[in-house]
Amino acid sequence: MKKYNFNAGPSILPREVIENTAKQVLDFNGSGLSLMEISHRSKDFQPVLDEAVALIKELLNVPEGYSVIFLGGGASLQFTQVPCNFLIKKAAYLNTGVWAKKSMKEAKLYGEVVEVATSADANFTYIPKVFDIPTDADYLHVTTNNTIYGTEIRKEIDSPIPLIGDMSSDIFSRPVDVSKYDCIYAGAQKNLAMAGVTVIIVKDEKLGRAPRQIPTMLDYRTHVDKGSMFNTPPVVPIYCALETLRWIKKSGGVEAMDKKAIERAKIIYDEIDRNRLFRGTVKEEDRSLMNICFVMNEDFAELEKPFMEFATQKGMVGIKGHRDVGGFRASCYNAMSIEGAEAFAACMKEFEAKL
Amino acid sequence: MKKYNFNAGPSILPREVIENTAKQVLDFNGSGLSLMEISHRSKDFQPVLDEAVALIKELLNVPEGYSVIFLGGGASLQFTQVPCNFLIKKAAYLNTGVWAKKSMKEAKLYGEVVEVATSADANFTYIPKVFDIPTDADYLHVTTNNTIYGTEIRKEIDSPIPLIGDMSSDIFSRPVDVSKYDCIYAGAQKNLAMAGVTVIIVKDEKLGRAPRQIPTMLDYRTHVDKGSMFNTPPVVPIYCALETLRWIKKSGGVEAMDKKAIERAKIIYDEIDRNRLFRGTVKEEDRSLMNICFVMNEDFAELEKPFMEFATQKGMVGIKGHRDVGGFRASCYNAMSIEGAEAFAACMKEFEAKL
Repeated sequence: MKKYNFNAGPSILPREVIENTAKQVLDFNGSGLSLMEISHRSKDFQPVLDEAVALIKELLNVPEGYSVIFLGGGASLQFTQVPCNFLIKKAAYLNTGVWAKKSMKEAKLYGEVVEVATSADANFTYIPKVFDIPTDADYLHVTTNNTIYGTEIRKEIDSPIPLIGDMSSDIFSRPVDVSKYDCIYAGAQKNLAMAGVTVIIVKDEKLGRAPRQIPTMLDYRTHVDKGSMFNTPPVVPIYCALETLRWIKKSGGVEAMDKKAIERAKIIYDEIDRNRLFRGTVKEEDRSLMNICFVMNEDFAELEKPFMEFATQKGMVGIKGHRDVGGFRASCYNAMSIEGAEAFAACMKEFEAKL
Repeated sequence: MKKYNFNAGPSILPREVIENTAKQVLDFNGSGLSLMEISHRSKDFQPVLDEAVALIKELLNVPEGYSVIFLGGGASLQFTQVPCNFLIKKAAYLNTGVWAKKSMKEAKLYGEVVEVATSADANFTYIPKVFDIPTDADYLHVTTNNTIYGTEIRKEIDSPIPLIGDMSSDIFSRPVDVSKYDCIYAGAQKNLAMAGVTVIIVKDEKLGRAPRQIPTMLDYRTHVDKGSMFNTPPVVPIYCALETLRWIKKSGGVEAMDKKAIERAKIIYDEIDRNRLFRGTVKEEDRSLMNICFVMNEDFAELEKPFMEFATQKGMVGIKGHRDVGGFRASCYNAMSIEGAEAFAACMKEFEAKL
């Protein structure tokens, strides 16, 4: 039976990315050695890194004056690294839930943190729209997509101060105006690669201004200066990212990913709205195209487990909602096909019809 | 032609580890999903992590009261993380070269650092033996094997204070008395896995004593408390580590690895010592079994490039010495066969005979 991977992350990757990565793990570029065994200093790896950086710049239309680096590990370390590098006196944070809260917590070790707005009053099921941004803050930090609650900020916030964006779960799913950001960071395990690498896009002239001694590995300049080769980078995850970036480009770039995401999410949201068993948990205008969260309607609460079993039998994988929200979550990253969304909607419809 | 992988890291892995990992990248446990696409919270991944931790404890005979965790990224971050967690007032460091120097540099951000001894006077070609260890220091940090110069501390230093060991390049190559350490850390890309994950063994009762606020991701307690699942761990590198750990166990454990390392290194060192063209760069008693460094004898300096070409033609990969030492380096990690060492020695012999 065909399976549809709706995991929230690590998550679906294009089949050709999987097959090409597996092939290189067996034999890298016909060298007789595995991709896992080659030196990051070998002449065959530098082109992998260079092409990956170039593709990120091309796909996101990164302006001059920005550097793109790969760091080992996940985005959670960036919750510390961002304020350590960028917070001079005061930073503004938009609190859209768990990830924003975690990043605010770490920032407080480095200076004053202003929460410009929060949607905690409604369990983060919407994105606050009206708030003041302190013009004397060093940056406004936003989590552009929240995997847990299924909210997304799909357009850059109009801000008088530079943005810093945690785009771990929606990077490469739509065009981004990078010029509005001092820094964008993203753990790779959603739209890009296997877990184990984080992409950082930084505005060079903003580095080195924070009034503190930064541990070498946490200083973005270390990695910018050495082209992500200060220490051994995660070779295989970066190769996997390269394969995905090539696939995105070949598939029409982030504009095509955006179009597909809109179409794909509409299929599922339309069915949620139509189907008398379910309801979406997020305010319509703030619904994420990446993580579609919904629950059983009150009258059908006892059908939650039966639907989970039914959907699992139909090949739907990873659709259990996060414990903070309950219900279901269908994560639809770039590699999820329209057919997958249709299969999921059909599964909901079929379950309703069985009653 | 058969290739022999003498890369310093990332480096040789057992062929069955490579093949099994590649297979799981294509289809994890017959699930129809790639190992790269599965959730770290899925029921199939927890057993991977649990088995890997259990095997590390078994292979290194880790005593009660220690935790084993996997962190994303490399060992270089540990140069900061170690003093951030363990340095209360003063720490002692044994300076055996680049890696020790880097770790000392970061420790200075957190307190007083005492260099108990250095072999800088001879470009780190020996391990200092006679030195005082301040009994009021919190720990003595040692780099047990130095990949660049090819030195190794093969027996725990007799120390009145706890040791902290960077074992990135010789972990699992020999038995270790873990009870002498407050912390052992090791980037995976030598004896364990692809690059992208670091193993940490910490003594639980020593955590939480440092007088500072530790960023959440740098606090070992975060990861101990959450069983390496505070944030998304690098799933594929951890799986690869598990495969290697199984292979080590099946091959007789670290005692067998040690025996093989001794035999393997002897084959190459004996040839270096016999062959009139070459000489080892490290004091005999401190020669690393992992990284065998040597140069051309003075009279044959002009043969360096020809030997490099000859060896490359014979299938020897990654034997160029580090730029700080020059000459050659044959890195012989666990997966290097005796046959590989014999082939390398034969290659040296054949080159000499051609003259």
